[in-house]
Amino acid sequence: MSDEERHDTSGDPELTGLAKELDAADPLAFARDRFVVEDDVIYLDGNSLGALPKAVPDRIAQVIEHEWGRLRIRSWFESGWWTAPERVGDRIAPLLGAAPGQVVVGDSTSVNLFKAVVAAARIAQRRDPARDELLVDDSTFPTDGYIAESAARMTGCRLRRVEPGDVPAELGERTALVLVNHADYRTGRLHDLPGITRAAHQAGALAVWDLCHSAGALPVELDRHGVDLAVGCTYKYLNGGPGSPAFLYVRAEHQPQFDSPLPGWHSHVEPFAMKPEYEAADGAVRGRVGTPGILSLLALEAALDAWDGVTVEQVRTKSLALTDFFLRCVTTLLPDGVVESVTPARHEERGSQVSLRCAGARKVMDELISRGVVGDFREPDVLRFGFTPLYTRYADALRAARILAEILA
Amino acid sequence: MSDEERHDTSGDPELTGLAKELDAADPLAFARDRFVVEDDVIYLDGNSLGALPKAVPDRIAQVIEHEWGRLRIRSWFESGWWTAPERVGDRIAPLLGAAPGQVVVGDSTSVNLFKAVVAAARIAQRRDPARDELLVDDSTFPTDGYIAESAARMTGCRLRRVEPGDVPAELGERTALVLVNHADYRTGRLHDLPGITRAAHQAGALAVWDLCHSAGALPVELDRHGVDLAVGCTYKYLNGGPGSPAFLYVRAEHQPQFDSPLPGWHSHVEPFAMKPEYEAADGAVRGRVGTPGILSLLALEAALDAWDGVTVEQVRTKSLALTDFFLRCVTTLLPDGVVESVTPARHEERGSQVSLRCAGARKVMDELISRGVVGDFREPDVLRFGFTPLYTRYADALRAARILAEILA
Repeated sequence: MSDEERHDTSGDPELTGLAKELDAADPLAFARDRFVVEDDVIYLDGNSLGALPKAVPDRIAQVIEHEWGRLRIRSWFESGWWTAPERVGDRIAPLLGAAPGQVVVGDSTSVNLFKAVVAAARIAQRRDPARDELLVDDSTFPTDGYIAESAARMTGCRLRRVEPGDVPAELGERTALVLVNHADYRTGRLHDLPGITRAAHQAGALAVWDLCHSAGALPVELDRHGVDLAVGCTYKYLNGGPGSPAFLYVRAEHQPQFDSPLPGWHSHVEPFAMKPEYEAADGAVRGRVGTPGILSLLALEAALDAWDGVTVEQVRTKSLALTDFFLRCVTTLLPDGVVESVTPARHEERGSQVSLRCAGARKVMDELISRGVVGDFREPDVLRFGFTPLYTRYADALRAARILAEILA
Repeated sequence: MSDEERHDTSGDPELTGLAKELDAADPLAFARDRFVVEDDVIYLDGNSLGALPKAVPDRIAQVIEHEWGRLRIRSWFESGWWTAPERVGDRIAPLLGAAPGQVVVGDSTSVNLFKAVVAAARIAQRRDPARDELLVDDSTFPTDGYIAESAARMTGCRLRRVEPGDVPAELGERTALVLVNHADYRTGRLHDLPGITRAAHQAGALAVWDLCHSAGALPVELDRHGVDLAVGCTYKYLNGGPGSPAFLYVRAEHQPQFDSPLPGWHSHVEPFAMKPEYEAADGAVRGRVGTPGILSLLALEAALDAWDGVTVEQVRTKSLALTDFFLRCVTTLLPDGVVESVTPARHEERGSQVSLRCAGARKVMDELISRGVVGDFREPDVLRFGFTPLYTRYADALRAARILAEILA
């Protein structure tokens, strides 16, 4: 008896049939085979740490044993280590709707946020020294607020926290920049990147976006929407591995004015001349600092092979269909009123996750995990389920909802 | 015919005999087997990128395949990823003469320099707001100067560059801190850490040390000498791999005042409470920022196994004997006047490298490398040879000198 048949007896045969049809028609079904995934674990935490792409282990073994172990120092040039931050940046760029030469990879998201917020404040203040206000998304992932506060303190600015929806109304002639999370990490709500960016520009301010929860999950279209600077992590929907380095996008027109607070030797125009005076390199390379963690960076590069032949538009289409289907399963299978979705129903406002409020959420998530459904818990009462279209099936969404229904019955 | 016998015919039989004796009596000879090293390559560039410790490949394969691939997100706690920055810091601490709880690993050296210099300036200014001068080692590795300049600009200070030997005379009542490289990356000269630190304290300033070229090569004794903050990389004498994360030492007494310019969520007292207000954790953890690159960090942790049963004092003894022996071989085998050592002859002033000035140094180094002697070239005319006592033999030092003599004959 197959898994699906077994579940048929305890669930809704219509949903089972639908899941089967959707999986059979899924143009991205082939991509699941590019990941290490098991049939007995439904991994819905790819919005926290993506699953392991199969290309990674052999590639990293080669990097360690041949490039480090044999070539050693020669690998900085012969194995392309030196240029990896910009090369991997250009691999990610199409997924962000960015032309080449604007994305560089390295450091953590927090460190890149510091570079981006300070550099944006400096650009704004060079245009108009009276612009001393940083508007930050009030529902932000905490590190963005902490780092923006530090950036404000160190650039003579002050921070004001506003709801993303209120940004257009709160912008003023003293606003230097707005920093907003594209998708809310807790609820999965997608904020209006084109609209907020346009409003910021109309007010003479810059727009800095944190794409941690949208990069690799949906089209971002940084170039098209005129985003000024952006950062994001690569270990969620980009599957780069634990703590894989973050990316920094600096719009081409801002690069000559990008004045980094972290001017390390890797962003010097002549890094090996060892000159005492700093002179920034041109281009996205200006966002580099010190020596990048090569193992983590090259694991990310190998992980990006999972995107061969896949567009982020296809991923978005499947993501919305998956989350729609999961919400339908939850509505159908769960008793009324035991959970409440805090993820918007409207597609334009939804990221690639579903967050359900639920009494005793922490214990419910523990029970889900013990039954092989891996999501996560977020304070105070949120069950968070991330849907990574590259390796998640409709049948997985249905089974997760069924197990949740059993637990809450 | 063995290598040594072959070389006997073209060299000095006394040196050959001496190398043999020294290797036979070497109490660290056993450690060479802990590294991937070949007999036909003499690797004297461990001061740039350490050789691969044999413990690394299997450990990283396990991290990738089991911890990331199977446990995935659970590994943050179940596999100890979350606490790795402070755990690995405590592994390095004894090599720096630091009691536990003062060293944390993560980010690049440049990023850690920014934290250390800004935090030290803030501590100094809290004691005395008139202290607005940062003294920086004029012969510094460039990134230290660039980062210190940025830190000065962002804390309302000004930078003044002075020769390390002049620091005691240049300290004044406006000096907030001095930043000095323990060993000069170009010449291998070791600066007077105890004396400069003492002088800084007598002048009411803090001492921040860059240990990139001394950590793992010689005893640093941070606690004993009262060093305030220190940073260093882990891919040279600590063999952590390309771009392995740097360390930050924050003396216990300064930790409550350590006010980081990069207050990311990993340094929050309650990182998972996701609070909008930043409240720093106690201890060295305060130096953390965002998610660390786990593959690079755990490769470093495995690499540190090579230190089991080895003290840094033993390493120092062998390092001095190796560099003494290499200098003797160079003097004996090379024609007079073709090279000039810029590395101090006095042990107290010597790091773990020998730098030789030589006409046409760049071409000479290319030729050395093609003949299996891997050192590196530094502008304008320096041949740089690093001696890592854990895997370098006296016979290697002799052979390197012989091949250099052949090239320069």
